[in-house]
Amino acid sequence: MISLTELQRRIDSGELSPQAAIDRSLEAIAAKDKTIGAFVCHDSKARAANNGPLRGIAVGIKDIIDTADFPTEMGSVIYRGWRPRADASVVMALKAAGATIIGKTTTTAFAARDPTATLNPHNHAHTPGGSSSGSAAAVGAGMIPLALGTQTGGSVIRPASFCGATAIKPSYRVLPTVGVKCYSWTLDTVGLFAAGVEDLARGLSAMTGRPELLPQPADARPRIGVVTLDFAGAPEAAGGEALRIAVAAAERAGASVHSLRVPEITAEAWRIQPVLQEFEAHQALAWEYTTQYDAMAPKLRGRLDESKGTTSAAYDDAMKIANKARQALAAMYDEVDVLLTFSAPGIAPKGLASTGDTRFNRLWTLMGVPCVNIPAYIAEGGLPVGVQVIARFGDDARVLAAALFLETALKR
Amino acid sequence: MISLTELQRRIDSGELSPQAAIDRSLEAIAAKDKTIGAFVCHDSKARAANNGPLRGIAVGIKDIIDTADFPTEMGSVIYRGWRPRADASVVMALKAAGATIIGKTTTTAFAARDPTATLNPHNHAHTPGGSSSGSAAAVGAGMIPLALGTQTGGSVIRPASFCGATAIKPSYRVLPTVGVKCYSWTLDTVGLFAAGVEDLARGLSAMTGRPELLPQPADARPRIGVVTLDFAGAPEAAGGEALRIAVAAAERAGASVHSLRVPEITAEAWRIQPVLQEFEAHQALAWEYTTQYDAMAPKLRGRLDESKGTTSAAYDDAMKIANKARQALAAMYDEVDVLLTFSAPGIAPKGLASTGDTRFNRLWTLMGVPCVNIPAYIAEGGLPVGVQVIARFGDDARVLAAALFLETALKR
Repeated sequence: MISLTELQRRIDSGELSPQAAIDRSLEAIAAKDKTIGAFVCHDSKARAANNGPLRGIAVGIKDIIDTADFPTEMGSVIYRGWRPRADASVVMALKAAGATIIGKTTTTAFAARDPTATLNPHNHAHTPGGSSSGSAAAVGAGMIPLALGTQTGGSVIRPASFCGATAIKPSYRVLPTVGVKCYSWTLDTVGLFAAGVEDLARGLSAMTGRPELLPQPADARPRIGVVTLDFAGAPEAAGGEALRIAVAAAERAGASVHSLRVPEITAEAWRIQPVLQEFEAHQALAWEYTTQYDAMAPKLRGRLDESKGTTSAAYDDAMKIANKARQALAAMYDEVDVLLTFSAPGIAPKGLASTGDTRFNRLWTLMGVPCVNIPAYIAEGGLPVGVQVIARFGDDARVLAAALFLETALKR
Repeated sequence: MISLTELQRRIDSGELSPQAAIDRSLEAIAAKDKTIGAFVCHDSKARAANNGPLRGIAVGIKDIIDTADFPTEMGSVIYRGWRPRADASVVMALKAAGATIIGKTTTTAFAARDPTATLNPHNHAHTPGGSSSGSAAAVGAGMIPLALGTQTGGSVIRPASFCGATAIKPSYRVLPTVGVKCYSWTLDTVGLFAAGVEDLARGLSAMTGRPELLPQPADARPRIGVVTLDFAGAPEAAGGEALRIAVAAAERAGASVHSLRVPEITAEAWRIQPVLQEFEAHQALAWEYTTQYDAMAPKLRGRLDESKGTTSAAYDDAMKIANKARQALAAMYDEVDVLLTFSAPGIAPKGLASTGDTRFNRLWTLMGVPCVNIPAYIAEGGLPVGVQVIARFGDDARVLAAALFLETALKR
């Protein structure tokens, strides 16, 4: 993978020009993307900016995020060739920080579950996960140092785990979703993929103008609460192994680690997340579902067909449960700094039929809390498996600090 | 004005065809809009649907709300002729209920403060208010029975007060903002304009599929708390008179009415609302402000210039204050069912230079609570002045019930 931190160091020292850094990504795309298929389109003549903390950093943008300079096709024939007027806010934030938008990365249709043709860079017989398939694969394959994705169920953390990338789903609305195709306004969250935790911190800090997100001189060793969400089912062997390895590494590095149970109400929140998600999706995608029904991707259309009868009363109940669960969850952080759990049940599923299962992600998206995926284990077939560090809502600096601690511990 | 309730009654009884109801609006537009200028464009061949509770109801859509069948120009030359791919969710909700989208109504550029050329239907020498200028004027002039607007500061309630229309700004996210040009994602709220409270209830209920919003057999007489927000300054004479008249009418009708003080923290929330609003606007309008600076409307551009230096720390503080104020405000509703206060300082300002002052609106938008404007008083020059009824967050049924009570009391 391409380290953003290393590129910045070399550019700052004058050892590497910003354009040479961009060219390195262009060469990697030319060499690898014919096989991987992470990009919908890219600018083979992309130019570097000369200023800004992200000068020389090539960024891939998930294709449900509006760009004025590239088509934005939403992974759907309905938007084939579609040209938004304006860049999304997050794209402008990247540009303002000097980044180069190098292209658009593949997405499942409207960020739902119909798979793209993108391959897992670590094993071409497996899915890269979704819905941010192209962003995870492009970073995991070492084509680009930074990419944007979005998560409504588990579409940032899960593909990152499958592709061996590091990724952050920040707290809800740290990054605006203006200009991002909506699936569920209560859940949709823009996230970042990169080669390591420090890269994420530098990227997110530059995009938001928040210096407090930059890596701080190593904090005290974090208090880590390990949670397994029994109500979400058991992980596969590889998922369990990744968590075991991460726990052992954290303990060896001196963190206080102990098992915790999440509050009862979170099980209910986990169960109602799809109610909330699909009720909002029916409104967010009303034009597509009503007027372009035949052109809708089949899995998404089927899911909308099934959830058609959801009542506003069921939605209101789901919202109340979510709010209660958020409050109950916040209380856990009196005892611990972060939670540690699975990023996905196990390795990336074989074939491209499924983008994987959101069961270890959707609670955290619903809670709006910041999550970071860190690669922890390489399973059979060369397939990576990550673990996820989760902090209190709004504590993005802490989730990054704890993730950096764990990443360092895992490298020892 | 055209009563939606009356149209529905006549259509239901077979006395009036849905198309005849639409034609009535087309004729009114043809007769009045050359003078008023409430529409950016309209479909002079608009057809009625034959089904749905809103069949035969012609609706005007504020021109920052995406429509697939009409251009969406955002009140700005930057979007001249712009054609979105999809209808906004609220437009689809109207269509699903059988409404006819008859045209797009004028808006200040990006729903900020640069006035449109629209005239106040009650006195052409005055502004209709803004930013939902065309929607308020079109309903107030009796051209259409229903219109959509949006409120970020006071852009639904204030122009409704100036134009003698009834209007609701529902609780935050009762109506989705998907496909609505964003100014501030924490504040932007879609609202409805109509001739009376029952019309609003019928419109909102049909759009949301929420039967509980329909007028209920008259509830107990509401407990009303009158608040005046001293920190927002004194009202003008006409604003004070409107509130005095409304209080007297409510008391006569048997409501329990007493003065209340809003919690201290709401004064702070009122002060920081612009910090939050402009910090988000810089991100929401980043593409326009950065790449189309010269084409930006001057008042909006000036406001963005001034607020350029707002830090994320100031924004985070503003968010914390807003959250505290929301909690403190919720506690008031243990004593009362609704609050009653000014909709605007007074009559619509003379001339078109200003769309009016948001000082009696922006706290309530920030709180996310449902507000209804009811015309209460006709001042000199034939200019209407409204009052505003406000309920607890999520209690849209109660705000409508109390507003209906007050409206009835005012008619006696």
